[in-house]
Amino acid sequence: MGRLTVRRPVLRLSAEHRSTRPDSLAVEEPMELRVDGRALAVTMRTPGHDVELAHGFLLTEGVLGAPGDVVTARYCDSLDERGANTYNVLDVALAPGVAPPPSSVERTFYTTSSCGVCGKATLDAVRLRTRFSPAGDPVVLSPQTLLGLPDTLRAAQRVFDSTGGLHAAGLFTADGSLLVVREDVGRHNAVDKVLGWALLNRRVPATGCVLMVSGRASFELVQKAVMAGVPALAAVSAPSSLAVDLADESGLTLVGFLRGETMNVYTRAERLTAAPVVHG
Amino acid sequence: MGRLTVRRPVLRLSAEHRSTRPDSLAVEEPMELRVDGRALAVTMRTPGHDVELAHGFLLTEGVLGAPGDVVTARYCDSLDERGANTYNVLDVALAPGVAPPPSSVERTFYTTSSCGVCGKATLDAVRLRTRFSPAGDPVVLSPQTLLGLPDTLRAAQRVFDSTGGLHAAGLFTADGSLLVVREDVGRHNAVDKVLGWALLNRRVPATGCVLMVSGRASFELVQKAVMAGVPALAAVSAPSSLAVDLADESGLTLVGFLRGETMNVYTRAERLTAAPVVHG
Repeated sequence: MGRLTVRRPVLRLSAEHRSTRPDSLAVEEPMELRVDGRALAVTMRTPGHDVELAHGFLLTEGVLGAPGDVVTARYCDSLDERGANTYNVLDVALAPGVAPPPSSVERTFYTTSSCGVCGKATLDAVRLRTRFSPAGDPVVLSPQTLLGLPDTLRAAQRVFDSTGGLHAAGLFTADGSLLVVREDVGRHNAVDKVLGWALLNRRVPATGCVLMVSGRASFELVQKAVMAGVPALAAVSAPSSLAVDLADESGLTLVGFLRGETMNVYTRAERLTAAPVVHG
Repeated sequence: MGRLTVRRPVLRLSAEHRSTRPDSLAVEEPMELRVDGRALAVTMRTPGHDVELAHGFLLTEGVLGAPGDVVTARYCDSLDERGANTYNVLDVALAPGVAPPPSSVERTFYTTSSCGVCGKATLDAVRLRTRFSPAGDPVVLSPQTLLGLPDTLRAAQRVFDSTGGLHAAGLFTADGSLLVVREDVGRHNAVDKVLGWALLNRRVPATGCVLMVSGRASFELVQKAVMAGVPALAAVSAPSSLAVDLADESGLTLVGFLRGETMNVYTRAERLTAAPVVHG
């Protein structure tokens, strides 16, 4: 459990030289998530913080709203060919009255009935399902504080510098204090682990917080932030069109290209404290 | 169709300055893939080359092995709220005798029966399903040629430089000639579009070719390369542990950190022409 890296030999090669040396790789293993004994999803993830991962996944799929919605979360007896537990199957038992997810919830969250499959229908589905709305969150964010988040996130990352293969996500308070950071080969998993931590630590809805991710801001990452009641999502890289649309409709502050001395604010910029306007 | 970017206003902000300007965003829209009228999967993708995307997805899931396995691939009448076709639902009709995918194929490709869910079981599942093995491919690759691929890929990308939000994948011949490049907000989709193009153009199994991706090399990307019979996968960034394991077991040459003047070769390095060995 918690095997973040492994060492493997690698041939380092240029046009004129070659040498062999050991290299650190980010560990990737499948995890099967079961709910009340029934297989729900398989994700390729970096082992560790699997209980948080399960909580975050089920929170952002709309199944959980509070830590008490889960009675137990434990590894099943999944054995490998040598008879050892793989710690790759996790079963979550829901509390009485908590509705289990539909059988093929796997990301097919939109309505397939009469309406067309389009961005609008996808946005509507999120609005219908979320328990928490970030729209009314009165948090105020300082640009100077936001500009400091990438360095804090990177400093807190344990593995990125050694493998280059892990995505990171961190939850911050509005004054820039880091609450939790998680790393994973999968960008969604890193966010699920962070939001699962927040749920387990009674920080959901995550009012007054900023979720920061090391990569891009896709629709699904904005969806996860909204489902957890986070009022602001900041990404080192670019957002997609539907990510901006969902942030706009949900009242989430979406920041992209947060690196160096600047950032792009796509939605709900009024949460950022004023700086002088320069035209051009 | 083919809407790669949209323009949106953005607030550009630093600690001391702010200005508003238009920004280009990569388009993200859901696509529902149906097989013989039955919904199989939904992916968040950049519109365009959807028929290739469907072919590549079904090829790398083991459903298709030749272009003749598909009779028709066409958009359904999926209408948005204004009555316009969304072009977001694609139905693939399989040829007689082609077995449809299992109902919940969505990435649950491994066996859940008695064996444990672990990397080994996941690797075994790919070996059992692939029609093409890259192991015996006699292709010889020059390090100098590989070092030139990232620049060629980037030069061929239409959108990356304007949005920073798209992943790219390209298929090259062993002499470095670019056969096809595709871009998408989803890394798997970019690869599926390339491999779907290869299937439609009778280049599968893609013997003698190199698949190049702009990001990291995950297990699933190696799986897709193996399923299409590609003998070499090159990535700008890091591979995961399970990606290296699958490449090793499948006889695929896996190259990572292909950038600047160097690269890391993780498996099947004997396909690379010799350069002097430097110890240390």
